[in-house]
Formats: sequence, C-alpha cells, structure tokens
Amino acid sequence: MSEAVAIGLLGHGTVGSAFAQLLDERAEEVRSVTGRAPQIAGVLTTSDGSFEDILERSQVVVELMGGIEPAREYVLAALRSGRSVVTANKQLLSQHGDELLAAAREGGAQLRFEAAVAGVVPVIRVLAESLAAARVERIHGIVNGTTNYILSEMARTGCSYADALAAAQRLGYAEADPTEDVSGKDAAAKMAILARLAFGAPVRLEQVPYEGIEHLTSDDIEYAQELGLGLKLVGTAERVGEGISVRVHPVFLYAGHPLASVAGPYNAVTVESPAITEITMSGPGAGGPQTASAVLGDLVSVLLAPPPTPEPAPPQLEVVTDVESAFYLHMEVADRPGVLAQIAQVLGLQGASIKSVIQKGLGDDARLVMVIHPLLESRLVAACDLIRGLDFVRSGPRAIRVLEEEFV
Amino acid sequence: MSEAVAIGLLGHGTVGSAFAQLLDERAEEVRSVTGRAPQIAGVLTTSDGSFEDILERSQVVVELMGGIEPAREYVLAALRSGRSVVTANKQLLSQHGDELLAAAREGGAQLRFEAAVAGVVPVIRVLAESLAAARVERIHGIVNGTTNYILSEMARTGCSYADALAAAQRLGYAEADPTEDVSGKDAAAKMAILARLAFGAPVRLEQVPYEGIEHLTSDDIEYAQELGLGLKLVGTAERVGEGISVRVHPVFLYAGHPLASVAGPYNAVTVESPAITEITMSGPGAGGPQTASAVLGDLVSVLLAPPPTPEPAPPQLEVVTDVESAFYLHMEVADRPGVLAQIAQVLGLQGASIKSVIQKGLGDDARLVMVIHPLLESRLVAACDLIRGLDFVRSGPRAIRVLEEEFV
Repeated sequence: MSEAVAIGLLGHGTVGSAFAQLLDERAEEVRSVTGRAPQIAGVLTTSDGSFEDILERSQVVVELMGGIEPAREYVLAALRSGRSVVTANKQLLSQHGDELLAAAREGGAQLRFEAAVAGVVPVIRVLAESLAAARVERIHGIVNGTTNYILSEMARTGCSYADALAAAQRLGYAEADPTEDVSGKDAAAKMAILARLAFGAPVRLEQVPYEGIEHLTSDDIEYAQELGLGLKLVGTAERVGEGISVRVHPVFLYAGHPLASVAGPYNAVTVESPAITEITMSGPGAGGPQTASAVLGDLVSVLLAPPPTPEPAPPQLEVVTDVESAFYLHMEVADRPGVLAQIAQVLGLQGASIKSVIQKGLGDDARLVMVIHPLLESRLVAACDLIRGLDFVRSGPRAIRVLEEEFV
Repeated sequence: MSEAVAIGLLGHGTVGSAFAQLLDERAEEVRSVTGRAPQIAGVLTTSDGSFEDILERSQVVVELMGGIEPAREYVLAALRSGRSVVTANKQLLSQHGDELLAAAREGGAQLRFEAAVAGVVPVIRVLAESLAAARVERIHGIVNGTTNYILSEMARTGCSYADALAAAQRLGYAEADPTEDVSGKDAAAKMAILARLAFGAPVRLEQVPYEGIEHLTSDDIEYAQELGLGLKLVGTAERVGEGISVRVHPVFLYAGHPLASVAGPYNAVTVESPAITEITMSGPGAGGPQTASAVLGDLVSVLLAPPPTPEPAPPQLEVVTDVESAFYLHMEVADRPGVLAQIAQVLGLQGASIKSVIQKGLGDDARLVMVIHPLLESRLVAACDLIRGLDFVRSGPRAIRVLEEEFV
C-alpha cells in the first residue's frame, strides 16, 4: 500500500485543467516513482472554492492561477505552513522571488518552478541542481515562443511584422493583446528568474532592460541574411567584470550558434560555464500540455526530495548596464564618393571598426548595411548620433545587436 | 557552522583527478547550496589505498575507476552499507544496472550516474525526474563524441574514414584503440542505460544491436548531401507496439532534425513524449572536466535529496528486433534501359517504394542512389538480396538508415 498525498490545486484555466487531466492519467506512474499516490484534495477556481479550506486539506500546493494577487498571498501562506509549492507563475517569481524563497526556508518547504521558464525545457532544474556548484558565466535564451514564431515567419516568408503577428494570433501562439510578449517584457521576467538561479543574486524585473520586436522590418532580416545572420529575440544574463548584466533584445546570430536553428514557437537556452563549455536545451515553449508536464515533473521531485532551498547568497553582484556588443547597422544614404570612408571615420572615433559591409542601390536611394565589431553600447549610441548628423545620411542608422561569433 | 560530509574517491585517472580538483575549487559553493562542506576522506588509486579503509571513513562514495571489477564489488558494498554512490561508469551500469539499483534500494542509498551518458548534458536527470511520470515514446541520441567528430570531419572535408580517425586521435577525441567507440558498442551501452530509465524496463547491453561507422565512405556522405541528408551515428530507444526497440547505427538525417546540426565531438539527445512534443539537450561529450562537472552536479543532488530509487517496474516490455526504417541505397549498375524500373519492381515486391533517386555516370560505371520509404528491416534485407541477384548490378546495394522526416 502506498501512502496518498493530497494536492491542492489553485487555478483551473488552460494550464490548471491540463494539469488536472495529466495528473489523473499519470497517477499510477507518480505512485510507482515516488511511492505516494497523488489525489486532488480541492480545486480553487475563480468562482468556486475557499483557499483556507483547500490549504487545510492539502499536503502540497500547485499554483496555476497566474498574476500577482492573490497568488502571492496564497503561495506565501502555503510555504510558511510547511507545504511545498509548485508554480508556473513567472510574474510572481520575477517580482517577489526573494520573499517566496524566504518563506520556503522559513517553512522548511520546497518551492519549484520549472514551468515558469521555457516550459518543459529543464533549465531551472539544471541551474538549481546539475550546475548548482558550477560557476556559470553566461546564459543566452530564446524564452518567448510567440516572438520566436513571429521572427521565424518573417524570415521564412518575407512577410511584415504585422502579418506574422496576425498569423501567430490565428494559430494561438499570440494573445489578442500581444504586448507582454512582443515588447520583450515576458522574456525579461524569465531572464530575471534565470539570472537569480545562475548567479545566486537577487535580480528584479525592474533591473532588466528589454527591447521588443515591434519595430523590426523584413528588410533588416533580408539584408542580414546576405551577411549570414538570422534574427532572434534573445535574453542574456552574464558576468561582466565584478557585476552581472541581464537584458533582452533582438539579436542577430551567425548560423553556427546553437540558438540560430531554433525556429517556430520553440524555446532554447544555452548555459556557459568554464568546466562544461556550454550546454543547450530546447523544446516547445509554454502551451497547456507542456506547462502541465513541467509542473508534474516538479511535483514528482517534491515528493522525492527534501527542501533544496539554498541559503540566500549575499547580493554582492552589481547589475551592469553598459556592456559591449557587436552591431548590425542599416542606413539610407546618398550614393556619393567617400560616404563609406566618412562613416568609417566617425565609427573609428568611437572605437568601432567595420567587420563586413554591403552597399545597395545608386543615387539617392542607396543603402549601407554593415556589421561592426563589439564596442560599449554607450559608444555605439554616440557614433549613431554623429552619423545621423552627416548631410548624406537620409535615414538611420538602425542598430541591432549581433551575438558574439564564438560558435562560428 | 556547516556539517562536513566525507567523500571517498575511487579512481584517480583523468576524470578522478579532474573531479578532485573541481571539488576543491567549488567546495564553498557546494556548502552554500547543500549546507554541507565536502571533504575528501580518501582516494583509492591503482597503487595506493585500501577500499575497506576508505569506505569506513566515507559518507558518500564517488566511483571513477571505470571497468567492471573491482568497481562493481566496491559500488555494491557502498550501496548496501547505506552510502550513496555517484559514478560515471557506463559499462558497469549497462551490464549490472539491475543489481546496482537493487543494492541501492536495499541500503536506502542513492545511485546517481549523470556522467555515464552524454557527460554534463542532463539527460539522466531529465528522464529520472522531470519526465519520471511522463510516457516517453522515443529517444534519439548522438551519445558518442568520437564518432560524431569523425563523421563531421568526413562531411566537412570530404576525407576518408581513416584520415578522419587519425585526426580524431591527434586531437585526443579518439583512443589509440578506437574499437569501443567506432564499433558503436560505447553508444549501445549508453542507450541501454537511457532505455531503462525511459521505459522502466531492464535492458541489457547484449539486447542492443549496434553497427559502427568503420565501413562508411565519403562517397555516401557526398551523394546523400545532394539528397539533403547528413550522416550521424544515432542511438534509438522507442516503443514499438507493446514492446521496445533499442539500437545503434549510422543514420541519415534531414536538415530540419534537431540532431542534424550537432557537429564535432558533441553529444545530443532528443526525448519525445506526447505531452511535451520533444525536448533536445546538447553539449560537449565526455572529457575530463565535463565528466567531473556532471559528477559534481550529482554529488550536490545526493547531498540535497533522499533516495530517488524507484520500484523496479515489471519487465513486461518485449525487446523488438525487426523495426521499420527508411533507407538510403547506393549501388553500382550497368547503365542500360530499364534498370531503374526493374529495381523499383523488386523493391515493390517487398513493399518498398522509392521516395527520391539520383542517377550518376554512364555505361558500366553508373551509380544509382535512392531513398526509400519506411519498411520492416527484414523486408529491406530480402529486397537487397534480390537486387544483388540482378545481372546488371555490379556492386551493392549499400544500405544506410534514414531517420523519419517528422521534423522536415
């Protein structure tokens, strides 16, 4: 006879109902692996159920309501009462992670959240356990499936951003109001969560600068393809000197990069650490069934393991904002002699040097597309301001980051 | 004050010494994450130390000796005494996995072995925990870095197998005697370990048919590139009807497959399950530092968690040997009218149909290269026997499997 374990389920939307169904289907496997038979003790929906009542009858709480309140209050109460919590709530974790982890330590409970970042791609587990004692240097992630789908479609078909977004909405990959995804904010919340795990330092969403994909044109994608570059919305968390930098923006990747071939509504994360070089994990981004699977994996771990909540590391890592990047620049110029030389000179004044360049067209309709070697972003901004002041520059430069070429 | 934990280290070769150094460097991180400060209580080398003495002074044993005996005896003794064991020993696990898992249950100890398959790529952890309650349908793996390097070099440079092997040996990617790797036996042992985890069924190395890469020619790679195919040594473990099939052989992949872009001495594993579609994990194959990192990750988990040794599943899954595959066929023929029609007819008798075909050359030196749709391997063998008997066939057919096109 196996001991039963009572699960309190908070939330019964897409993910909540997918989880309830999956748990029902896989109950025997959970029992076989953990020795405990899971039983849903109560479900809190928007219209039904009392949290206090469900909490009292539960040994483990699964929070799939989303949003900050009342999810925050409920998760804190569960953890403080000693009940472990599995959640998929990235907003909550990225904005109140410290408070939740402190409550877990206080209650001697586990807080698990694989489903909050990259669905069933096991990046949380790998950072929290496999690489817990490793020195992680850098994480690059495609952590938003909506934007990856849109950029893949723009590259594949040459369509506009608006058309690709409409296609994503038709297929259910984008919400009716896509702002959270296309602005990069969703990815920023996920990168804050990953940075905390990787560097043991509290990183709040407000400290993560992000840029979205709304302003990108199929022109840029097309020109860049000639330079061997593909466009992705990439989150980066890395050590910079004695500090860390966490940020999200559209980035060009060379074809050899492990993230370059990630297409459609997929997620992928690359973790670099000296001892391991790098590992890459990829899979479908968050959908109901994938998220439910990640939650179930966490539930299994909760039933197997004691609290793995580490001591909070001293928040000694400074968040750095001005970092070095290589850039793609796109500008429209009058096609006169000496144009390229003058631009190269202006770039040189800021320490930027040109790696590759394409000139297109003639007369007043010429375009200059180039990739420049890494420089501090503040200096790139200064160089662009100077270029904008040149009389032969008709529009631009548009600047998009290019990821380092280490994998070429 | 943190409690100390005494580690007994068995083996001090490349991996053993890399682990000892890494543990020394990362001791403070291990303590911070687990609350316990690791200390090496003793090291057993080929010339020094007594196992009994080291066992007595240890709370956790790390086995990095390799080989079957005396590693088997030592690991069994440690587990039965209640000491958890971390090992990188794939031979031992693939041949004596049942016995070791039974000893772990008996002693209430953990047996962890992430480093035994694909180095630091977290495939063991994902199968044992994230997907422990999922229904895994199929695993595809590039789990031998030596052969992946050799095939990548043959494709990249057009060189022969012998030259690519020599290059691998110069770079330290292949041993002086490369038989274990190039024959596919190393990959077969790893696939047996993965199959056991994925399907909860005991799979022994002897039940895994394998084919190596020694017979492959750069010709095949070149022709196949025209068909959009790249060559990899792939291990497969999958459900087939009510049974399972586990096997290793050279396989052609279409460019869209997640394993197609894995180049050089890298490993990668794709896991398919209905709820998650598929996830892919990749990274450097086993080298000293990577293996040591995987061992350290396991040590952290041992210090965090109670025994996650599941009940043994009833061994009800039959190991199936005749499965369906698509095939690439390469034959030299006299270039007479009706040759292709006759071959198509012979294939048709066995239920095989041609998907794509290339004809090269003229007269007696003509070549016919084709890809045929999936059929049972026994029927392919029968078709090849018939084709060999046709008077215009000068050599071949050479047959190499092609992975399903689900990712195209």
